[in-house]
Parts: sequence; structure tokens; C-alpha cells
Amino acid sequence: MDSKNGKKYISQAIIRRLPRYYRYLGELKAEGVERISSSELSILMNVTASQIRQDLNNFGGFGQQGYGYNVEYLYDEIGKILGIDRPHKIVTVGAGNLGSALSGYQNFPRYGFNILAMFDNDPAKIGTVIHGVPVLPVSELRDYIQKNEIEIVILAIPKEEARQIIQELNGTGIRGVWNFAHTDFEMPGGIIVENVHLSESLMRLSYEIANSGDFG
Amino acid sequence: MDSKNGKKYISQAIIRRLPRYYRYLGELKAEGVERISSSELSILMNVTASQIRQDLNNFGGFGQQGYGYNVEYLYDEIGKILGIDRPHKIVTVGAGNLGSALSGYQNFPRYGFNILAMFDNDPAKIGTVIHGVPVLPVSELRDYIQKNEIEIVILAIPKEEARQIIQELNGTGIRGVWNFAHTDFEMPGGIIVENVHLSESLMRLSYEIANSGDFG
Repeated sequence: MDSKNGKKYISQAIIRRLPRYYRYLGELKAEGVERISSSELSILMNVTASQIRQDLNNFGGFGQQGYGYNVEYLYDEIGKILGIDRPHKIVTVGAGNLGSALSGYQNFPRYGFNILAMFDNDPAKIGTVIHGVPVLPVSELRDYIQKNEIEIVILAIPKEEARQIIQELNGTGIRGVWNFAHTDFEMPGGIIVENVHLSESLMRLSYEIANSGDFG
Repeated sequence: MDSKNGKKYISQAIIRRLPRYYRYLGELKAEGVERISSSELSILMNVTASQIRQDLNNFGGFGQQGYGYNVEYLYDEIGKILGIDRPHKIVTVGAGNLGSALSGYQNFPRYGFNILAMFDNDPAKIGTVIHGVPVLPVSELRDYIQKNEIEIVILAIPKEEARQIIQELNGTGIRGVWNFAHTDFEMPGGIIVENVHLSESLMRLSYEIANSGDFG
């Protein structure tokens, strides 16, 4: 099945694995490794060599019989597939503990995720700079997004405040929302929403502990 | 397939959905709703009524023909399945921005996730209290875990520091690790590891934007 821009349909499972390939290849590249076979990569990543070959075949293969994969080439190609071969302009709504921590997170700029500003309603925070990121009033959010061609908005606010912000974001030209608010929503106009529900992740851990049976 | 403690095997997909049921039922309960049919819940949660019935049948059903689900009862039962009907003692390793934000996160205590202490190597942080949580030296980690019967450790440290801490945790009696370090690992003795790789979540959003084609 082809999507409207002519790209092949890729399953959610593969998309979930791509960043992991990218991480391992980045580490190999940093160690100066030039090429790797699917079986070596398979041992390193604890997945089968056949899954690696199948996954990468979705994007045209990249491997050569008897040679394996060129680490730097494959790293760059997966970076392109993930859309991180170019920088992304981001703002964060909510300059609380989590929003501030995310905005100052040192791993993001290395992948081209650049957080330019935070927005908050708290007069004590507005006008300050937290972890190098300025805090602006929420009333300026729409204007700032449009003037600076912001692509991604991080929502780090309680669910009670999320609805209003979501409405503010309509028609601003953003392409995606990274949602930490503890609620589900859809955005119009093809805007992608990626949820990170932290409490739910901790509940899955709690479930696994309660049902592991090793100590129970 | 039965696990060794006699519980039914439950697929990862269902486990991923359980906290979401719990969240919606909690909201209905807070609104004073006493009972709900699977079709009403289906509209609210944007999944099919048949999936809801199938999912909940894995745990014995809970529903009654012509009545639907008793909201409070189902909420409590899913809480038990998730293991959040009792409190969990937690410590955080890493009192940086993310570790501090997680340790002060107000949603966690309401589910019984109680973060008692943070551990760090930074002399400027040791002895301080951040968001109400005391910061102790990493050298006291093992001792503290054993004396206080800590069940879950949050790892909020760079991947370079993760290996050493993982070794420190061996044999302490912990049951699970909530891992924010950008690396994969397994723990011996049935200790569960739940990963939250934030950069990878942001990359998936970037992928979806790059491949959405609506603006491309």
C-alpha cells in the first residue's frame, strides 16, 4: 500500500524500532566501526538477524551480501527516514518542573530538536530564563509560533488546561504535538499527536511486578 | 497459557491499554457516573465495544448483560490488576532536571507511587531537598533500598553512568526499574525494566511528520 506521497506503508512496529537502530548505529559510528553484519547487529541489539534484514528491506535494504551494512551510511539514511536530517523548531507550553526539564534536556539538540521558548501563565515565571530557555506569556503563543515557524509543540500542562491550549494551536501551522498532558485528543489538519503518558508507563511496570510471580 | 502463579497470560497490547481504561473509569467515577455500557465507553475511548468486552473478559468480564459495567467496581478491579491497590516505595537515581521533575510529579502519589529519596553524586545537591524529596549520596543507595524495602528505582542518569548503578542494584531486593537512561539492559532475578526513551518518542513524532504528506 502506498501513501499519497508515494512512500511505502510502514507498520507501527517498525517505526517503533527505527529510533533504536539509529541509537545503536550512532554508538557504533562513535566507536569508529565502519561496517557491521546483520548477525553482529542482531547480537548487539538482541533481535534476530532476519528481523533486522526485513525491517531495513522496507526502506530499500542498504546491506550488501558478504559485506554487511556500512555503519555511517545506514545511520545517515535512517536519520533521513526519521526526519532528523534537518532541525526542528519546538516550543514548550508549561514551564513547570517537567516542561522545564524537557526544555533543558541535553539529548534533544544533538538530534536537531531545538526548543526555542516556553510559555506559561505564571507571572513569577514569565520573563525568566530556565535552563537557557526564555519563558513567555501564553497570550503570545499563537503569534510566536507563526512568526518563528514552529513545527512541534510540547504540552507539559495538566489535563484541565490542555483543551484550551489545543484550541489555540489550531491553524497556527504546527505539524506535531508531543503530549505529556494526561488526556487523549486528536488535532485537525493532519497534525500528529505523540503521547507520553508517564503515569501509564509506571502502571505497566507495576502490573509487570504484580504479575511476575518470581517473588509473589 | 498459564504463568507459574496461575494467572492467565495477558498480551502486551492489553497491558498497554489497561492504564487507559483505568484513567477513563477514574474520570467517570470523579464525575459521579455509576454505570456505563461498553458502547458508551467505546465512544468515549474511541475503541470498539467489542475490543472493550474482549479486553475485560481476560480478567473475568465484570460486565452484566443489560446493565453494563459498574464504574467504581471496574475501576477498583483494574487498579488491583495493575497492582496499584497498594502503595509502592520508590527512589530516583539522578537529581538532575528530569530526575527532580519526576520525583516531584504530582500525579504519582495519587496512584500510590511514593518517591522517598533521590540519589546523586553532586556535592552541591546532596543534603538538599528538591520538590519535597531529599537528595542523598549514591554511596548510600544500596543501604537505603534495603533498609526501606524500596520496590522501584527510577533511573534518570546519562547512559554512561547507568552500567555502574545497575550493578549496585543487584541483590538489593528491588522489583523493578523505570529507566530513562538512553540505553537498554536486562536485570537478573526477575527484576522488571520499563524503558521510557524520550528521544525515541520525539523521533517517532518527527517520522510521522516527515511522512504525513499533508503539507509535504
